[in-house]
Amino acid sequence: MSGHREWLAPERFAERLDRAGALIRDAELGALLVGVGPDLRYLAGYDAMALERLTMLVVPAAGRPTLVAPRLELAPARSSAAASADLVDVVGWDELDDPHALVARLVTSPTGDAVALGVSDQLWASHLLKLQAGLPRARFTSGSTVMRQLRIVKHPDEVAILARAAAAADSVVDAIAAGRLLGRTETDVAAEVRDRLLAAGHQVAEFAIVASGPNSASPHHAAGERIIGAGDPIVLDIGGSFEGYASDTTRTIWVTGGDPARGPDREFLRLYDILQGAQAEATAAVRPGVPAERLDAVAREIISAGGFGERFIHRTGHGIGVETHEDPYVVAGDVTPLREGMAFSVEPGIYLEGLYGARIEDIVVCGSDGPIILNRSSRELRVVDGL
Amino acid sequence: MSGHREWLAPERFAERLDRAGALIRDAELGALLVGVGPDLRYLAGYDAMALERLTMLVVPAAGRPTLVAPRLELAPARSSAAASADLVDVVGWDELDDPHALVARLVTSPTGDAVALGVSDQLWASHLLKLQAGLPRARFTSGSTVMRQLRIVKHPDEVAILARAAAAADSVVDAIAAGRLLGRTETDVAAEVRDRLLAAGHQVAEFAIVASGPNSASPHHAAGERIIGAGDPIVLDIGGSFEGYASDTTRTIWVTGGDPARGPDREFLRLYDILQGAQAEATAAVRPGVPAERLDAVAREIISAGGFGERFIHRTGHGIGVETHEDPYVVAGDVTPLREGMAFSVEPGIYLEGLYGARIEDIVVCGSDGPIILNRSSRELRVVDGL
Repeated sequence: MSGHREWLAPERFAERLDRAGALIRDAELGALLVGVGPDLRYLAGYDAMALERLTMLVVPAAGRPTLVAPRLELAPARSSAAASADLVDVVGWDELDDPHALVARLVTSPTGDAVALGVSDQLWASHLLKLQAGLPRARFTSGSTVMRQLRIVKHPDEVAILARAAAAADSVVDAIAAGRLLGRTETDVAAEVRDRLLAAGHQVAEFAIVASGPNSASPHHAAGERIIGAGDPIVLDIGGSFEGYASDTTRTIWVTGGDPARGPDREFLRLYDILQGAQAEATAAVRPGVPAERLDAVAREIISAGGFGERFIHRTGHGIGVETHEDPYVVAGDVTPLREGMAFSVEPGIYLEGLYGARIEDIVVCGSDGPIILNRSSRELRVVDGL
Repeated sequence: MSGHREWLAPERFAERLDRAGALIRDAELGALLVGVGPDLRYLAGYDAMALERLTMLVVPAAGRPTLVAPRLELAPARSSAAASADLVDVVGWDELDDPHALVARLVTSPTGDAVALGVSDQLWASHLLKLQAGLPRARFTSGSTVMRQLRIVKHPDEVAILARAAAAADSVVDAIAAGRLLGRTETDVAAEVRDRLLAAGHQVAEFAIVASGPNSASPHHAAGERIIGAGDPIVLDIGGSFEGYASDTTRTIWVTGGDPARGPDREFLRLYDILQGAQAEATAAVRPGVPAERLDAVAREIISAGGFGERFIHRTGHGIGVETHEDPYVVAGDVTPLREGMAFSVEPGIYLEGLYGARIEDIVVCGSDGPIILNRSSRELRVVDGL
């Protein structure tokens, strides 16, 4: 809603663009074509609206990058971090121009040879199809080979922002758990989460999963008109954008309504205990060199040993940075060896369909000899009266 | 932030899917592949988060559509309007499955012949590249040929929602113009716009351009740290999502700070007068059969005759519906004949770089014999003290 400002120093963008050029050459690409989205924010500090009008950063294998923007967005394009620091040329196009042809001219090799072009993951298909039609001899490939290597390891400045984002989200979780919950709809609680995320310094309140009662067994339940009652668990999974970086944390709350008889049953307590152990052990396994999938295996083994293996129906986590979900993924098959500065969620969950579920999520950074846990609010089951 | 609910009756989705099938056959496509975004909301009433996990509605030329969703989002997928009404099959995929291969199997013809596939405009390039790799004999083309024809004419139920959305946005414009502006930052006013859009019934506050003083000469200036002073014009362009449909309106305000000497100068008043005439005449030209570009020409001729032709640096408008910008576009080259039920903005602007600018925007529906103007707040220049 507000104008974009950039919290990182211009040097970060200079480094990123330099490294991008080197990785583009390593990958034998002619250029990287970056549409609106997290890759553009990462490389150029430019947070444009995703619209049908093409905005595209063209990073060639050699030479200066060009930021192509519609003429009526030239002012914000020119005030982006990369343009302000004179790291890119800015070229505007007029309402009746063909911006895809303009990009095609920028990436056509002088000899007219076929060229390989990497495109950003979130570029719209409509733009990719037009570029493919205009460059029939080019080979289009995922630009994530380049972007992944850049984004996957965080600079200390990025870790510092992720830590502040996590602290802000923690304060919201604690406030929600301490406040009234009984008799409110999930949607109403989600609206409070949104207001509190913004008040705690987020620029955008991205999501608020408030999954109460049986809804807690649906991992991606958002928030609906269900009224929270005594004896309900609530999976509270919230996050937003804070100084350009994502927050994402989950805690599980149990609402008694002040009636000791409406506390968690023995099976839920057993389930939660196993879950908490799995989350802690997976986190403790973080250190450089450990494959990302190993953390998933650690959590899954513990949950399976407890008899809930079939009820842990999602991966253990995802990388986080300028985007809420990014590399590495903490899932079987992602063998990325952890490196110092990688940041990701550790968030196992157990879901008994129709009954209840629980999840615990922290953002964890791989430190030089172990985990750095950014979320610090209590991971215990929060049994509250909710009054 | 809140769980998706659907305001339209299930019959609308049944009609849309039926018509989609017919248009897919007309276009000689094998299937339409619809990723997360406005096309999916339009066809299935499903407002999924755009994530790296593939969610895709596959609408074949013949037979029932299939909604492919990650297993952990099966519950919301099954509660979508189309699935609830049993209009689509829902197929989940597990964390270690290959969802692109699953879609490829759904669209492979029994004979293995090459097939043409339409893809939704906002499908991520990462998904399109994987589908292209998995279906090397298929020809991928824009699905907008189908979606455009569906979405471009609004059902009366849609017009009714657009009208309520416009009224809600109008109330926010009036409240902002009547409140304190002097000494506040653009960002602070934008935050108030956001709160008021939500309070007025929007589910999402999408954007708030608060462009003051010289910033008013930048059409897509968002809102920054500039402090609004006496003698400042403000271009206020706001909108959000209301019951699944977009609102979008612009008014221009002039803040005097209570000092009569800081009112608009003669040149600004002349500029505004020309702009207001152009906006009114372009609107008055709306009727069935008139090409969309004609409205642009009407506005442009008036502004050019006033000497500001070079200062009207964008198209006159854009269609609006489930998306803020959609077909038809009110721009030279869009010869779409207007039809009853088409909805679009009429929003000429005049921008004197470094000095000031102004814009007036209404959402207009093409009625059976003329325009139906949905935004009703005053289009006069709002000269306010801002105290």
